[in-house]
Amino acid sequence: MKESILQKIKSPDDLKALPPEDLPRLAGEIRRELIRTLSKNGGHLASNLGVVELSMALHLCFDSPRDALVWDVSHQCYTHKLLTGRYEAFHTLRQSHGLCGFTNPAESEHDFFLTGHASASASAALGLAEGKRLLGDGHYTVAVLGDGALTGGLVYEALNNAGQRKPDAVGSTKLIVVLNDNGMSIAPNVGGLSSYLLLLRSKPGYRLAKLRVERFFKRIPLVGKPLARVISLGKRVIKKLFTSSTIFEKLGLDYLGPVDGHDLDQLREALTSAKMMPRPVLVHVRTVKGKGYGLAERAPDTFHGVSCFDVDSGAPLEHCGCFSAAFGTALAELARENAAVCAVTAAMALGTGLMEFQREFPARCFDVGIAESHAVTFAAGLARQGLRPVVPVYSTFLQRAYDQLHHDAALQRLPLTIAVDRAGFVGEDGATHHGLYDVAFCASIPCACVYAPVTEPELAMRLRRAVLEPREQVTFLRYPRDCAWDWPEELPPPTEAAFERYGDPGASVALVTYGRLCKTAYQVYQDRDIRLIKLNQLLPLDPEAALAVLGCERVCFFEEGTRCGGAGERFGALLLEQRFAGESRLTAVDGFPRHAPVEELMAEYGLDYEGMVRALDED
Amino acid sequence: MKESILQKIKSPDDLKALPPEDLPRLAGEIRRELIRTLSKNGGHLASNLGVVELSMALHLCFDSPRDALVWDVSHQCYTHKLLTGRYEAFHTLRQSHGLCGFTNPAESEHDFFLTGHASASASAALGLAEGKRLLGDGHYTVAVLGDGALTGGLVYEALNNAGQRKPDAVGSTKLIVVLNDNGMSIAPNVGGLSSYLLLLRSKPGYRLAKLRVERFFKRIPLVGKPLARVISLGKRVIKKLFTSSTIFEKLGLDYLGPVDGHDLDQLREALTSAKMMPRPVLVHVRTVKGKGYGLAERAPDTFHGVSCFDVDSGAPLEHCGCFSAAFGTALAELARENAAVCAVTAAMALGTGLMEFQREFPARCFDVGIAESHAVTFAAGLARQGLRPVVPVYSTFLQRAYDQLHHDAALQRLPLTIAVDRAGFVGEDGATHHGLYDVAFCASIPCACVYAPVTEPELAMRLRRAVLEPREQVTFLRYPRDCAWDWPEELPPPTEAAFERYGDPGASVALVTYGRLCKTAYQVYQDRDIRLIKLNQLLPLDPEAALAVLGCERVCFFEEGTRCGGAGERFGALLLEQRFAGESRLTAVDGFPRHAPVEELMAEYGLDYEGMVRALDED
Repeated sequence: MKESILQKIKSPDDLKALPPEDLPRLAGEIRRELIRTLSKNGGHLASNLGVVELSMALHLCFDSPRDALVWDVSHQCYTHKLLTGRYEAFHTLRQSHGLCGFTNPAESEHDFFLTGHASASASAALGLAEGKRLLGDGHYTVAVLGDGALTGGLVYEALNNAGQRKPDAVGSTKLIVVLNDNGMSIAPNVGGLSSYLLLLRSKPGYRLAKLRVERFFKRIPLVGKPLARVISLGKRVIKKLFTSSTIFEKLGLDYLGPVDGHDLDQLREALTSAKMMPRPVLVHVRTVKGKGYGLAERAPDTFHGVSCFDVDSGAPLEHCGCFSAAFGTALAELARENAAVCAVTAAMALGTGLMEFQREFPARCFDVGIAESHAVTFAAGLARQGLRPVVPVYSTFLQRAYDQLHHDAALQRLPLTIAVDRAGFVGEDGATHHGLYDVAFCASIPCACVYAPVTEPELAMRLRRAVLEPREQVTFLRYPRDCAWDWPEELPPPTEAAFERYGDPGASVALVTYGRLCKTAYQVYQDRDIRLIKLNQLLPLDPEAALAVLGCERVCFFEEGTRCGGAGERFGALLLEQRFAGESRLTAVDGFPRHAPVEELMAEYGLDYEGMVRALDED
Repeated sequence: MKESILQKIKSPDDLKALPPEDLPRLAGEIRRELIRTLSKNGGHLASNLGVVELSMALHLCFDSPRDALVWDVSHQCYTHKLLTGRYEAFHTLRQSHGLCGFTNPAESEHDFFLTGHASASASAALGLAEGKRLLGDGHYTVAVLGDGALTGGLVYEALNNAGQRKPDAVGSTKLIVVLNDNGMSIAPNVGGLSSYLLLLRSKPGYRLAKLRVERFFKRIPLVGKPLARVISLGKRVIKKLFTSSTIFEKLGLDYLGPVDGHDLDQLREALTSAKMMPRPVLVHVRTVKGKGYGLAERAPDTFHGVSCFDVDSGAPLEHCGCFSAAFGTALAELARENAAVCAVTAAMALGTGLMEFQREFPARCFDVGIAESHAVTFAAGLARQGLRPVVPVYSTFLQRAYDQLHHDAALQRLPLTIAVDRAGFVGEDGATHHGLYDVAFCASIPCACVYAPVTEPELAMRLRRAVLEPREQVTFLRYPRDCAWDWPEELPPPTEAAFERYGDPGASVALVTYGRLCKTAYQVYQDRDIRLIKLNQLLPLDPEAALAVLGCERVCFFEEGTRCGGAGERFGALLLEQRFAGESRLTAVDGFPRHAPVEELMAEYGLDYEGMVRALDED
């Protein structure tokens, strides 16, 4: 077997030293490595297969880390990792103490941010570029973003801001935005702009031709004002030849493309040209999501984020979580009963279990693109009109809509239901995706109502009441990626009350918790003589729940969520009001946990069986 | 004196019944009413003067409230209020129990949202329009937004989403977005798009001409598929005639304009045409901010939001708050010492006291437009590059950047400083602008550091440390609109500690508070034998602060901020940990307070002198 080229690439310099004829072979090796590793570890397959050549071209044309590469969401950074000294460690991708599935400054100087939320790269890159300009550092900053991220308003805010940057006495803003356009985000792309991009994609080489003419003028040395004026005039004439300017040019950016994102020569020409532009420039690159792996090319949304899968068949080797599916089924049932029920998703119909609803009620299912802020305000508009919208969204992405939840929904007293999926630890996706903060930030939204159902009937019951009852508040139902819990037969199941109490009312120790920790708490409850309090409703927190533990010598609260601002602190404040003077222990999460299997993180934060027992027993 | 027309307008129907020749006179009366009332009550003068004819045209062409008018920010809704039965009450504008300075559903069926944050109208209106479509309600929804709001990504998310709406079996999306383009937001507008709009403004009537041709085709009745196809072909030919499409058309919307926003006939023609468009349409209206009041036309940013002023001279009759100015001065001083210090503002340089800094360090002062999300991520980029950015922003608008603070700054351990201006009650601007939630939502941001300086030296000291010291966290300095407090000579001034304790260590009652309530607490302290604890640092909350009240029989915490998730609850949790078993009282704010003078709201929530004494004494 021939020696691998990939294993010899320790840094971008090694890539640059390769003879050109080795580059296509390297691309092939990278693709095989991606498929091999991801079939075992899971991860973002299709998007990474799509940017192999683009990542290579970026490292060939730029001087990382002096030139800064900023990857949007950064789920597509695997080739970048392979080219920046992380081939040896690549088999540890997304594993505990292994490589992070996203860019991470702690891992490499070639990674500029630990990012996992879409549409932020252009903002961050503009900041880096302006920073370099102020510091007199002549290097480039490159943001790489997918066309899916273009539906996010944050990109637009950044491009609009970048579009006004002109070279001045301090220097020029050396920002290059690479639009990786595969016509898909996670699901097939939506929005007016995506149709426009489709049009733009169909004009191959159009802007490069323009560039070549312009470059001719640039080669004339600038020897004085009169000649410069002539050149400027020439440019204006050329500009007139290309009357129909792109949307990016209307925002004030230069535009190059579209470029074939699997043709290294075209990519290198475009990126080299981009470096010569005097203003921030957008390079439009067309790629094929899943390129080089037939199964992924044909079903790129299925292969966007994968668990372990069989390389030949593409079949997943693990079973997916099913809480989302239970939500989807319950919602579809409500929609059959009531025509006012509708759903709004930010490009997450598949992940949040909405597919059944979408198929059955296409007119009542709104996919607004990766635009959580708009999703919530739009849903507020639907609610104001008398409809009963439900917005299923991952906890971590809901952060994007904080102000909209507060100002456009809660302040208006509108009956909006938010299904907070992926609440709690998310495991392998790590720090950028943990859903540990929603209970805390919802606390600052007046009148917010937060439920933490743990079984499918509990979820369905809460959803039914949130969606069909008259309400003047925003209701959140939060649940993890897991399957719902099969409630043990020996315990009465959760009711419509704000909390449940189980066990000996005379027991001197109480364990208070909510969400999927109830399962672990139940194991402890089986082994110990304790009162067990399951909080069904986290906000508003019922003061009666505090009364239920009075008389105990020790109360232990376990929270799979951030300590500061969380339900545990609030429960503590209630206990204080009741003049509880026993021992109290709050076990919760601090900081930004790393990526690791959920069970490992539970143990790390004292939220597993042993942790609970320890807290019950310790002095 | 001739009888006023305005006083006879009790509803939009009365407006519609007026003879056309009375309309200009009515416009004049409205302007005089605006100037008279705002000179006494304060409010948004220039923007309201700019939309008198536009508001009249909207009510002439649409059937409010069946057709829904959604005003962006809604600070420009005064004419709308005068035309919808609120003339009699208009003298109470912005006064306690009087008319709200923004649209408010509680006040009139013609108001669809209580809104005060920019760029949300298009999202909400699209939701209303889709709601009407689903319900088979054929009425229109109109969003009116300023060109300043166009720098906000939320508008773009909504327009991109609206652009894909096509008429289908269920009906068409009857959304009309009116762009009120005065070339200004609050300060002169920024961003690539604003240059583009300037270009677009200069083509009078261009798109209306196009429309007239298209309308010819529309008049042909649709009698079958073949003819429809002919028409469609004809449209495509016309489309080709107008090759250079606007940015809005590229997003998939129809476009009409630009229209002279002070010419009622043009406005009515454009709006009537817009109603006939089959898809969501943007009507581009050019207005003059401050129209009809010479002083405001010449200095529209000064007259954007005014306190009481003298009608002849334009001179303000009240003194402005000065905490912002103190911040600006302190920041400029730091910038003189250290070249890494820079500032980022979301179109709020004037309001946040940045003018001095901006004049002296233009290259280091970035105005990114009304785009708080981008402002924070952009600043994170600057910080990553080694600069020390400071983002002054009103507390209420900071909500827009919650995810960016969390994910792009805190998670990256970046040393960002946020100067949270207008913290606490804001008074007349009311529910949409109160800065009562930042302490609570910052709690859910790991490692956030929040200070509440009350004097100018304290502010300067905290700012200096936040900006110049090595840090791996986001630091928030929060202060109200007021002037800083002149610290009483008999008390030692605030130090660098996390809290201060004053008074008899043996006193049985403790009063704990922070921010401007310290002034009131000091008055109580002078009259009573209490321990007084001033929290300098709210996050992280120092457990020692709880130790400082141990031994007391009663602890009263006063918080000019939301109860749920606030510092008081957290302090309570600390007390519980210390097994404090005395009486504890938390006086804080619940819900969304109304608009009223700050002192009145303080009394209402028990945060004035009497309220404090009451809490100290009650059983």
